[in-house]
Amino acid sequence: MINRLAILGVGLIGGSLARALRDAGHVVEIVGYGRTLASLQRAVELGVVDRIETSLSAAVNGADMVVLATPVGVMPEIFPAIAPYLGESTVLTDVGSVKGTVVAAAHNALGAKLAGYVPGHPIAGTEHSGVESSFASLFVGRRVVLTPLPENSAEAVARVRAMWQAAGADVTEMSVEHHDEVLAATSHLPHLLAYALVDLLTRLDDRREIFSYAAGGFRDFTRIASSDPVMWRDISLANQTALVKMLNQYRTELDSLIAAVAGSDGDRLQQLFARAKAARDSLINNDSKKE
Amino acid sequence: MINRLAILGVGLIGGSLARALRDAGHVVEIVGYGRTLASLQRAVELGVVDRIETSLSAAVNGADMVVLATPVGVMPEIFPAIAPYLGESTVLTDVGSVKGTVVAAAHNALGAKLAGYVPGHPIAGTEHSGVESSFASLFVGRRVVLTPLPENSAEAVARVRAMWQAAGADVTEMSVEHHDEVLAATSHLPHLLAYALVDLLTRLDDRREIFSYAAGGFRDFTRIASSDPVMWRDISLANQTALVKMLNQYRTELDSLIAAVAGSDGDRLQQLFARAKAARDSLINNDSKKE
Repeated sequence: MINRLAILGVGLIGGSLARALRDAGHVVEIVGYGRTLASLQRAVELGVVDRIETSLSAAVNGADMVVLATPVGVMPEIFPAIAPYLGESTVLTDVGSVKGTVVAAAHNALGAKLAGYVPGHPIAGTEHSGVESSFASLFVGRRVVLTPLPENSAEAVARVRAMWQAAGADVTEMSVEHHDEVLAATSHLPHLLAYALVDLLTRLDDRREIFSYAAGGFRDFTRIASSDPVMWRDISLANQTALVKMLNQYRTELDSLIAAVAGSDGDRLQQLFARAKAARDSLINNDSKKE
Repeated sequence: MINRLAILGVGLIGGSLARALRDAGHVVEIVGYGRTLASLQRAVELGVVDRIETSLSAAVNGADMVVLATPVGVMPEIFPAIAPYLGESTVLTDVGSVKGTVVAAAHNALGAKLAGYVPGHPIAGTEHSGVESSFASLFVGRRVVLTPLPENSAEAVARVRAMWQAAGADVTEMSVEHHDEVLAATSHLPHLLAYALVDLLTRLDDRREIFSYAAGGFRDFTRIASSDPVMWRDISLANQTALVKMLNQYRTELDSLIAAVAGSDGDRLQQLFARAKAARDSLINNDSKKE
């Protein structure tokens, strides 16, 4: 149970967590902080937060749980700004899609209060953003990865875990480094590939006609290219090492594929396509479109 | 109105067309031909076709409309096999995702009967295949591209157009070459990119864990990698020229993207992502997930 929850950044993720915890009866009071006053006021109108604060110190002061839900690129500025105002027993977590660079920033800024900072990442979202798009069931049945630090107290980890479980999530743990590699492969690489495809087509002469012939497969494939550009710029830079490694591996795979098509190597194409289909069909648990 | 419709290849596309035309009252009798007897018998059980033929000559004989709905790679063998049995007023069309190589094969095989062959391509489908997956509304509101030949009679084009309109489709026309370029960009390239991604992840050591963390975005992005490997081998080879051109353009785009990430060029990344998002949001008509 959380007495006072401070959500720093009340967008899709922060707003959905607030809604979920309120519905679950897991929180008494929710304080929202953000850079855009109009958006914060909308969060109050929608009943997502109880009240807003426009200074970080006031938002954090007296909170027993602080959730950092800003874009990843902003987090390094937030840690030093809130560090002096975090209470002795305050637990801090974040929702960043990259953990290595965020944890490094926390290390530099938090000092002894690192014990109460439990890095986290809910693997959930849509291509939409903003508090208007938030909904209470966003995390139901979804993975939330915690990457606890050696400095963390067991109680802090348990409180963050309990919070996400109250929101309906399936909470797991892994190391910071492993998290960033897994996410580079399953999320960051696909986003960049989709952006690259749409950008390429956008620059063709007959782009309007081309998009008009895009069928369902194309729409599914490129849905993630409608995601927030600033968020994905931040993620790309924050997870640079793992992402460049995956991008280069993909480039090698693509070269091989181009060689097979150009060389009329039907056997190789069929093998590759069949291996991919079998993997996708068997390894992906839930193929529902309605998510 | 079609008196006797012969569907050569009663799978997802052929089966769905049969169902749609029957529902629309646009056909009196439907004859199915295919290579797999069990699958043909299933088509009869499901009421998709009225009767089956296991020889091409018998299937085509007496039909006023013949729809070639086999994989693209098989079509070049079918044209010479059916040419002698096509009647003077029989109209022939196909559903191939590539038009250039299919039309070339028809040119070689059909002689004067080329007048009655109107190349076509319904831009519709799912990642599933087979008559079991067919449904009557597959083409409702979807584009069907006809690429009429200089040799075509106006009546033949009109009859193929009327057939697809009866199935609920939005019928347009373009040249053979332009069709293959547009489809390489919007369909064939995305399929190969999705196959390449899944294949790459399949070969990583921690592939089971990686797939278990795949969220909705990944599932959408890779859905087309669950498509039929033989069909996509055929398409890749049949549209080799346009596809290799698009693959190489994508490779250049990817190189540029890798350079931006590796070079920490946040401005360039944000511009590219924003351009792609704006294009996708504005140029794609219908973003429904329920298709």
